[in-house]
Amino acid sequence: MKRRLLLVSNSTLHGGGYLQHFASNLTRRILFVPYALHDRDAYSKTARDKFKTLGYEVDSVHETPDPVDAVRKAEGIFIGGGNTFRLLKSLYDSKLVTEIRKRVLEDGIPYMGSSAGTNVSTISINTTNDMPIVYPPTFAAIGLVPFNINPHYLDADPNSKHMGETREQRIVQYHEEPDTPCVLGLREGSMLLVEGSKATLLGSTKARLFQRGKHTTEYEPGSDLSFLLTDAQ
Amino acid sequence: MKRRLLLVSNSTLHGGGYLQHFASNLTRRILFVPYALHDRDAYSKTARDKFKTLGYEVDSVHETPDPVDAVRKAEGIFIGGGNTFRLLKSLYDSKLVTEIRKRVLEDGIPYMGSSAGTNVSTISINTTNDMPIVYPPTFAAIGLVPFNINPHYLDADPNSKHMGETREQRIVQYHEEPDTPCVLGLREGSMLLVEGSKATLLGSTKARLFQRGKHTTEYEPGSDLSFLLTDAQ
Repeated sequence: MKRRLLLVSNSTLHGGGYLQHFASNLTRRILFVPYALHDRDAYSKTARDKFKTLGYEVDSVHETPDPVDAVRKAEGIFIGGGNTFRLLKSLYDSKLVTEIRKRVLEDGIPYMGSSAGTNVSTISINTTNDMPIVYPPTFAAIGLVPFNINPHYLDADPNSKHMGETREQRIVQYHEEPDTPCVLGLREGSMLLVEGSKATLLGSTKARLFQRGKHTTEYEPGSDLSFLLTDAQ
Repeated sequence: MKRRLLLVSNSTLHGGGYLQHFASNLTRRILFVPYALHDRDAYSKTARDKFKTLGYEVDSVHETPDPVDAVRKAEGIFIGGGNTFRLLKSLYDSKLVTEIRKRVLEDGIPYMGSSAGTNVSTISINTTNDMPIVYPPTFAAIGLVPFNINPHYLDADPNSKHMGETREQRIVQYHEEPDTPCVLGLREGSMLLVEGSKATLLGSTKARLFQRGKHTTEYEPGSDLSFLLTDAQ
């Protein structure tokens, strides 16, 4: 499988250095998907300005007359952060879910996602932190990897008086449901590089892996997480 | 309209004093809905023990052979907190949404909700904080009031290095979508009492009201929020 993914925890356009390394020698043109934010023009301008400093040209899918055709011709795709529900609904409304999966898994074009863009690259958006501001036709997502990610993973604050559930409790509740896949909690500053059947944790922070019915495990940056890519976990 | 509601921000069985005042002279028997947590037996036991100290008998809807019939015969309903998506899906699976609406709005039985139980009492669950661990058939909810609530409303922490959206930003993103109703942010310790066409903010903390295209407003405990109950806001 030609799969080549960079899945970043943070919501904004961080990880520039990794991104440059990731996409270099692959493409100089990136198709940007701004669907997670309301103001697509402003978001595309921000992305275009940022990528220009890294040496990339950006086309925004919302500026093209035919989004499906734009994906078919894309040399690389970057989906930015914002609201995951809005993003997934827009991807389905524009009929891009299947097309992106095909381009990335079969044709091998590089995929970069940050926050919501990372969520939609996994099996489903069941482990997003976002508010469900719109109703997508399903929570099933693009499925570039056979597990889920929780971006912006946050450790419980022992001094907090807030009575809502901790992030860990929420993910444990997810695993109370039947047939739920692994969840990789990516803290701020963390990202996952996937090259074919190899997955490596990059960045400056540890990641926390939740597996249904098993103990949770912490992984240091640099860890080989390729075992997550086999379907039978 | 005979409507009589107590909608609490907190997730657990707090607000006992208010609750006692609220339901007294109305009923000594409460139908409890434990659908928001996975272990319904344990949750019902907790609720039963707690309500016993307040002088109430508790029937749990999950222990009855016919949930719809149990709602039809209920003298009062309490829906506890947990995961809002799981709760709403279970309410639809058990065909209780319409029946609860009818019993509360037409027959006037008292309704108490906390956290997730407060979310499902409003127009929709679009402003829950919970993780979307299951996919309900719609985000539309019981609709006992014509606006939405965000329980556990949390002010932004200026010292936080977390890069995810603040609660306020999330609600503002909701209001970027068309035709979205008011959102009342109920902080921990806050609750809304609704009696017919009168709504009063109770508890120990202020509430924050978000209206699409307008400034947000803070309300002190004791404030009359009856204007929220008119459909044309």
